[in-house]
Amino acid sequence: MSSSEAPAAVKPVPGLHEDGSPERLAIDTIRTLSMDAVQKANSGHPGTPMALAPVGWTIWSQFLRYDPAHADWPNRDRFVLSVGHASMLLYSLIHLAGIEEIGADGEKSGKEAVSLADIEQFRQLSSKTPGHPEYRHTTGVETTTGPLGAGCGNSVGMAIAERWLAARYNKPGFPVYDHDVYVLCGDGDMMEGVSAEAASLAGHLKLSNLCWIYDSNHISIEGGTDLAFDEDVGLRFKAYGWNVLHIDDANDTGAIAAALRTFRETNDKPTFIVVHSVIGWGSPKAGSEKAHGEPLGEDNVRATKKAYGWPEDKSFYVPDGVAEAFKASIVERGRPLRDEWVAMMDRYRAEHPELAAELDLLLKDELPADWDADIPEFPADEKGLASRDSSGKVLNALVKRVPWVVGGSADLAPSTKTDIKGADSFEASNYAGRNFHFGVREHGMGAVVNGMALSHLRSYGSTFLVFLDYMRAPVRLSAIMELGAVWVFTHDSIGVGEDGPTHQPIEHLATMRAIPGLDTIRPGDANEVAWAWRAALEKADRPTALVLSRQALPTLDRSKYASAEGVMKGGYVLADCDGEPEVILMATGSELALVAAAHETLKGQGVRSRVVSMPSWFRFELQDQEYQDAVLPPGVHARVAVEMAGSMGWDRYVGRASTGGRTITMSTFGASAPLAKLQDKYGFTSDNVAKVAREAMEAAS
Amino acid sequence: MSSSEAPAAVKPVPGLHEDGSPERLAIDTIRTLSMDAVQKANSGHPGTPMALAPVGWTIWSQFLRYDPAHADWPNRDRFVLSVGHASMLLYSLIHLAGIEEIGADGEKSGKEAVSLADIEQFRQLSSKTPGHPEYRHTTGVETTTGPLGAGCGNSVGMAIAERWLAARYNKPGFPVYDHDVYVLCGDGDMMEGVSAEAASLAGHLKLSNLCWIYDSNHISIEGGTDLAFDEDVGLRFKAYGWNVLHIDDANDTGAIAAALRTFRETNDKPTFIVVHSVIGWGSPKAGSEKAHGEPLGEDNVRATKKAYGWPEDKSFYVPDGVAEAFKASIVERGRPLRDEWVAMMDRYRAEHPELAAELDLLLKDELPADWDADIPEFPADEKGLASRDSSGKVLNALVKRVPWVVGGSADLAPSTKTDIKGADSFEASNYAGRNFHFGVREHGMGAVVNGMALSHLRSYGSTFLVFLDYMRAPVRLSAIMELGAVWVFTHDSIGVGEDGPTHQPIEHLATMRAIPGLDTIRPGDANEVAWAWRAALEKADRPTALVLSRQALPTLDRSKYASAEGVMKGGYVLADCDGEPEVILMATGSELALVAAAHETLKGQGVRSRVVSMPSWFRFELQDQEYQDAVLPPGVHARVAVEMAGSMGWDRYVGRASTGGRTITMSTFGASAPLAKLQDKYGFTSDNVAKVAREAMEAAS
Repeated sequence: MSSSEAPAAVKPVPGLHEDGSPERLAIDTIRTLSMDAVQKANSGHPGTPMALAPVGWTIWSQFLRYDPAHADWPNRDRFVLSVGHASMLLYSLIHLAGIEEIGADGEKSGKEAVSLADIEQFRQLSSKTPGHPEYRHTTGVETTTGPLGAGCGNSVGMAIAERWLAARYNKPGFPVYDHDVYVLCGDGDMMEGVSAEAASLAGHLKLSNLCWIYDSNHISIEGGTDLAFDEDVGLRFKAYGWNVLHIDDANDTGAIAAALRTFRETNDKPTFIVVHSVIGWGSPKAGSEKAHGEPLGEDNVRATKKAYGWPEDKSFYVPDGVAEAFKASIVERGRPLRDEWVAMMDRYRAEHPELAAELDLLLKDELPADWDADIPEFPADEKGLASRDSSGKVLNALVKRVPWVVGGSADLAPSTKTDIKGADSFEASNYAGRNFHFGVREHGMGAVVNGMALSHLRSYGSTFLVFLDYMRAPVRLSAIMELGAVWVFTHDSIGVGEDGPTHQPIEHLATMRAIPGLDTIRPGDANEVAWAWRAALEKADRPTALVLSRQALPTLDRSKYASAEGVMKGGYVLADCDGEPEVILMATGSELALVAAAHETLKGQGVRSRVVSMPSWFRFELQDQEYQDAVLPPGVHARVAVEMAGSMGWDRYVGRASTGGRTITMSTFGASAPLAKLQDKYGFTSDNVAKVAREAMEAAS
Repeated sequence: MSSSEAPAAVKPVPGLHEDGSPERLAIDTIRTLSMDAVQKANSGHPGTPMALAPVGWTIWSQFLRYDPAHADWPNRDRFVLSVGHASMLLYSLIHLAGIEEIGADGEKSGKEAVSLADIEQFRQLSSKTPGHPEYRHTTGVETTTGPLGAGCGNSVGMAIAERWLAARYNKPGFPVYDHDVYVLCGDGDMMEGVSAEAASLAGHLKLSNLCWIYDSNHISIEGGTDLAFDEDVGLRFKAYGWNVLHIDDANDTGAIAAALRTFRETNDKPTFIVVHSVIGWGSPKAGSEKAHGEPLGEDNVRATKKAYGWPEDKSFYVPDGVAEAFKASIVERGRPLRDEWVAMMDRYRAEHPELAAELDLLLKDELPADWDADIPEFPADEKGLASRDSSGKVLNALVKRVPWVVGGSADLAPSTKTDIKGADSFEASNYAGRNFHFGVREHGMGAVVNGMALSHLRSYGSTFLVFLDYMRAPVRLSAIMELGAVWVFTHDSIGVGEDGPTHQPIEHLATMRAIPGLDTIRPGDANEVAWAWRAALEKADRPTALVLSRQALPTLDRSKYASAEGVMKGGYVLADCDGEPEVILMATGSELALVAAAHETLKGQGVRSRVVSMPSWFRFELQDQEYQDAVLPPGVHARVAVEMAGSMGWDRYVGRASTGGRTITMSTFGASAPLAKLQDKYGFTSDNVAKVAREAMEAAS
């Protein structure tokens, strides 16, 4: 195809469709479906699908190793639309490719993944074609994208997963994993720091199975990219260690194919292809930011169709044979590959039964029987150990039996205790390693861990809790996508001590608890940590955040207190009194032993108190009302919550101050000092807890 | 000085101190003070101060234009320690330079900013020497650093501010602003995406007053940087458009000075100096990650002092004359410059009285009289307008009278409505522009806006609320630093509609309200928006987040309802009933009109309800108990809060469910659909509000 010239008015497209080639028909079908869907929804982004249709067409029809009848084939190539706003490009491709839907139960539903009717319902309630592509919602969507840079980051995780899985499961004659990851990204992705972090890591790891195609259209929402962005992106990627290729015209499918062949032949580094395109190509708004995020308008849609040589009056028009030819181009390549793979896996099962059985579990998101058998029970210990330390022990106990639990830290593993002992580092020279060095790149780590989870690894990422701020976007996306990622956040309070307020989380616990679908667990001692890890691993379709202390916590004597298994219900009665309690003391994490001590003090003063451990509000809320009321009897109004964090959210459990609710929490940022000084300063002492408990009783009476 | 070789054991330093040069004495004083302070605190980071002491010494003694007696001189060069963990380097420099303390009242306290006694109190409660440098806490600290990349980002804002201030206030013969910004950064800074975003912007803007000195020590916490980071950082900065220089040995002060002279002579781009250093230089732990984040140990401290030719038994030792010589080197250069500047400003006041008066206000963080006189009062209007639109009108009304209100968006200005109409863009070719194009770089924008605020600009940054996730770290730091930055977040709920769950904030309001010291305001109509902007601008020592709708909101008839000035108190009674209310309806933002409608419905049903507008919880909590109880009478237990966001935090005001508390909020992520469909789906209708209000009354009774 030819030039990208962008005259002021309707673009004539000389010769287009004169030969009626399947290529041109398919590409313009993608373009017009995208225009029409946005126009009908009166909402959406037409310009990028129109510009990148030739790129999408080339990848899918000539390179992607994919069987539309088996979108869950583990060894399929991945196609990631990091420019998620261009969702109509992806929906058009899925539709034309004839991808068959796989239901939530993992079985085929018998429907098209995206029908033409679905495309006509673009951006409508419950449709298969929401504004941005949603993983689990639409078959063929490999990851949820929209927040810029997210797809780029995920793709690095997918490429890592392929390398790791290949290193573990491939055997001579059995290339179980051997696939590539293609990414379409844009100027927005390139400006975001997360893509820079992920790209630097990908270059370091020499992920030659990864190809980013960068749509350089010189347009941003505020106008030309020269307003804010004129760096040499290609040179930057060279600095990261990528192979960098350039294509002058996004319509030149021959050049695109040549570049993609170079990618396929490159074995020592990832590939970055800069493609110059014209946003809204062929429309009166071509080359303008006005083609980005709003419908073209009825008149412009007609003018554009005319320029394409397309029937102006037809909407959602797929010319005869276009879908069939496009699908055939994919099936011809992909189906034999998948069929061979399936046959090969039958032989693999015979020759490598243990690995095959392991892989079956992995692909079903299940765990081996007795996977948690080595998790220790920690003996009572007044001195105890930091929950980051007990977490390290528990992690090291469970990884032996679940080889695909892999992860690492944003350069804090010695502090977050997430290293797998005896395991190698994951490096370009050793893709079998299980310890990941993400570098000081929290946002990138989050996106990469999500990408790994998307390929069924039980991936984890760790840093200090305060640096959650750097990686909230991927943590949120792990919840939206219902991924079984585990986020390990240590140094969880003013317990950080001397590093001071920039390193002391205050609001972070509340901000995690506020994310729908994220199980935030702050265990109170080593045995609660053991159950917290069990809770995390047992759910492959829900992310869990473990919130752990820097400082030592006593290991409670469980012969005296209730079992730590209560963690599984989110909240439980740790210690009680005879008869109805006069006051309920609640705590999590490092404050659990503190309220247990206050409970003893109150007992000595003749006050009947109950201690409730509340490590996971999320899980507690999932319990039925009867259980919740048994733990927190509605009639007991004097309630004190103690947590070395902000009070936000505790009021749900303690009630209003006037009815007897109290919190001992942080209302300011912390300070740099040894922890004991801070505990005194901010009132985290058992005497103060007992005092406030009596105040609560007075207010409630 | 000489080589960086790193033998295994104690490093001999041949010839060191043989000549007893002031340079060597000063540099080793910085090193030993840093070692001793960390050792005494038994906490901290000795290695980087030891490695970078020669760099700090060179900048301060030979380049920094600074008067230690006037640390608040507006035209001083800025020194930013982005490697905030190396705080002892900065404290040592401040001490040796003899910087005089300026108190919270802006007056000199008569004390040293950092005395030797303060250094001995490193990392202790209330000391002047907290673990990481804290702005406002210690004179001489230009910005709070520690979270990696933050200082880098701030520095771009400082350099921008200098350029903007120069463009506005410099006149022929009056170089009011003409200073540079020096930054020390490390591998961690370079791995973080925020520094990449900020560096790309700085290159684009050709900020030749900005110099980053990158400490490349090849060490990260997990081990060598080759574990995760082997990109060509210098080449990357070339791609950003920076001038890149290399220094092989951090001890080579001659080479450092030569590079800094090149920086001073470069007028068309920022400068990036790669300095190869040895962490913990001269100590037995030199070149190892063990020198990074823990005390060296008593024996190693002694061995290191021996290697330096330092008295082994002396701690916190400043040899005679060292401080005096170091201070003199700064004063000799800086004092005459400041004296000239002060004299020049006297003439400036005479020749440019209006600009001088403006500058006086700016520097005192005050606003002109009648600064808000043009802010419109919006007439009642059932159709109304989006609060992002009314915000745009209010902003445009106030910027006329406060020229130093400047800001922009992360490539969303057409949507966030933050453009200043008729003003130019801030560009390399026009540093007088007031509209900033930050690019799709939310994190970078946040750090840059903070840097601008640190130079007294009333800076604002805007994006969609959901992308707060990308920039939480700088928003938090604006609160820690008590900066008057304004964060404008639009598209604040499922009101986003078709863009779907990735673009619909759910938890974000709660996560902002949880940040200590951040005033989060979600105004309910155009007149509340007007007051919200007043609230924001009136506080120069507190950040404000404005949370605004995409969709139109009715402008309430204030002849019927209470005045929108109630915003200033955070919460107020918008509409009431005769006698004691049976139920209180609370809302913010787009739900305010909804509960006002439900109030009417309930009135028709004979139910006495009160409507409370709660745009700022932060401000409401600052009111005395009497006011709070007048708005929310403790005896009224039936309370319903309505907000198109998660419920987190509302329980504080509504109380527990069993006592009559109810929320109509979001418990899941949203969905892609037109807003009206979503409002139905999730219960945001006045009928549902009325229904839930009656349920609350039943539960409370």
